[in-house]
Amino acid sequence: VSDAPRYVTVLTRGFSGPEVRRQDPSKALLSAFDLAATRGDGAFEALLVRDGRVVGRHRHLERLGRSAAALGISGPGPDAWAALVDDLVEQWTARPTGPEAVLKLVLTRGDEGRPGPVTAYGTVAALDPALPRQRADGVHLVVLCLGVPAWGRRLTPWLLPGVKSLSYAVNQAAKREAAARGADDALFTTLEGLVLEGPSSTLLWREGRHLCTTPMNYGVLPGTTQAEVFDRCGELGLRGAERGRSVREVVRSDGAWMCSSTRGVAAVRSIDGEEVSQDPALTAALQELSGVPAPVAARSAA
Amino acid sequence: VSDAPRYVTVLTRGFSGPEVRRQDPSKALLSAFDLAATRGDGAFEALLVRDGRVVGRHRHLERLGRSAAALGISGPGPDAWAALVDDLVEQWTARPTGPEAVLKLVLTRGDEGRPGPVTAYGTVAALDPALPRQRADGVHLVVLCLGVPAWGRRLTPWLLPGVKSLSYAVNQAAKREAAARGADDALFTTLEGLVLEGPSSTLLWREGRHLCTTPMNYGVLPGTTQAEVFDRCGELGLRGAERGRSVREVVRSDGAWMCSSTRGVAAVRSIDGEEVSQDPALTAALQELSGVPAPVAARSAA
Repeated sequence: VSDAPRYVTVLTRGFSGPEVRRQDPSKALLSAFDLAATRGDGAFEALLVRDGRVVGRHRHLERLGRSAAALGISGPGPDAWAALVDDLVEQWTARPTGPEAVLKLVLTRGDEGRPGPVTAYGTVAALDPALPRQRADGVHLVVLCLGVPAWGRRLTPWLLPGVKSLSYAVNQAAKREAAARGADDALFTTLEGLVLEGPSSTLLWREGRHLCTTPMNYGVLPGTTQAEVFDRCGELGLRGAERGRSVREVVRSDGAWMCSSTRGVAAVRSIDGEEVSQDPALTAALQELSGVPAPVAARSAA
Repeated sequence: VSDAPRYVTVLTRGFSGPEVRRQDPSKALLSAFDLAATRGDGAFEALLVRDGRVVGRHRHLERLGRSAAALGISGPGPDAWAALVDDLVEQWTARPTGPEAVLKLVLTRGDEGRPGPVTAYGTVAALDPALPRQRADGVHLVVLCLGVPAWGRRLTPWLLPGVKSLSYAVNQAAKREAAARGADDALFTTLEGLVLEGPSSTLLWREGRHLCTTPMNYGVLPGTTQAEVFDRCGELGLRGAERGRSVREVVRSDGAWMCSSTRGVAAVRSIDGEEVSQDPALTAALQELSGVPAPVAARSAA
């Protein structure tokens, strides 16, 4: 993996709007003073590239726009980002090194000392093989409390609820903690023990005819994969619903899934060692709905 | 300010340990894949350079070491960082553009896709003139709730309590909110209304013979300026103490101060518009103790 090709494209401001410029990925791109590096002050998105196409482009660009607005960063518009995405997909598909890649978009406030243009760029690289494996095999979770009550992030825009900011140190620390405990990922909970989300994914679970997720007003990130699945789950006779639930209620539900753009829909096998009921047919159906079916090879090996 | 010179030095790993390498500050330094830029995954320190000397070097390097350990980043040792600090101070003092500068140290986990060396560098640039002005004139604060109870970050190392990480998007958003409300800075509180700290500073207040600050087990960042002042406040007949207090109790105390390395000790003039009692003689004495007296010109103009 470590020698696999990867690509970088930058949005620059030309005479008539933003333009894309390809950049040697082995060369430095960012100033030592860039606020991304010194303060995690910016927003990002991670998209899956599969079979030469990017999944969920519109939802991701929309969320990036909302994140930028919440941060007060006046960034490029969706057309400029779309051109950047196209250029990265083109680079990847010309010389792919695997069936799937992760395409990242990064927007930062720019140089700390010199108010001026924002920094806007994208990268594409081979997907971490653990992610399609989890899509096929499911995930084991451990519960980590996020230290906030369910209502703690309402009416407090400075806490950036629902913003996909570059400040992911806690999310990364939670993933390391989960790995140290032998799990695939963490499941954040509120102080009351209600389920929130993963460090970079959305939790779904089924209660009869309802496909459920955490209420957005708990301050979780609105998931693009969750949104796509909710929009289409009527095709499976299910209805999407936001519900405040404890870990125990999710464990006893009719099945649970962790969703993210790069992982797709992965069945939750266990939470803190307690088994969650499995429904392989529904898992496969939800994966189809999400636009990211499990890899055939991995699925048949499972 | 925007054309003032500034300097960058990088720690590189030579054959016999880390070495310093000066870098053109107008040139890019960081990879598009650096985890500082893509995840705010690293630690930093900001030190004041004044009269050709850096203030509180030992405390800052100690805290950087603790932050790195909490993040699980195996970075350069204190000797390497000290050499980096020396080189930056030398560059600044050879061509200073003001009486004070801010020296930043940045440590990141390195390249996201390629596990290998960490990124370690430092910068020095002229200090934002608002900071010495606040040291001389005091600050007006607004209260912003951080959405956590006082005990919310205990025993939860993945929430990185006391770690000066690069993930400061919430801190930056709080500063913008404070500015939008016409204040100089924010004062974070717990859900119970207990005072915590500023987005980049420590709160002190006086209760009779006690100089007080927030209990460290509330998850606040241990302040280097606060530590220095506590160590030496016996010279003023005061004793340092950690106390859990409401905003109202601080407003009614015998005086309050916001401390940080670059601002030094600044008297709190008001909190949410309520005046806090002023003690200019004690403010000046605390500033002397901290090693950063208010600029003479600014002080006489106040």
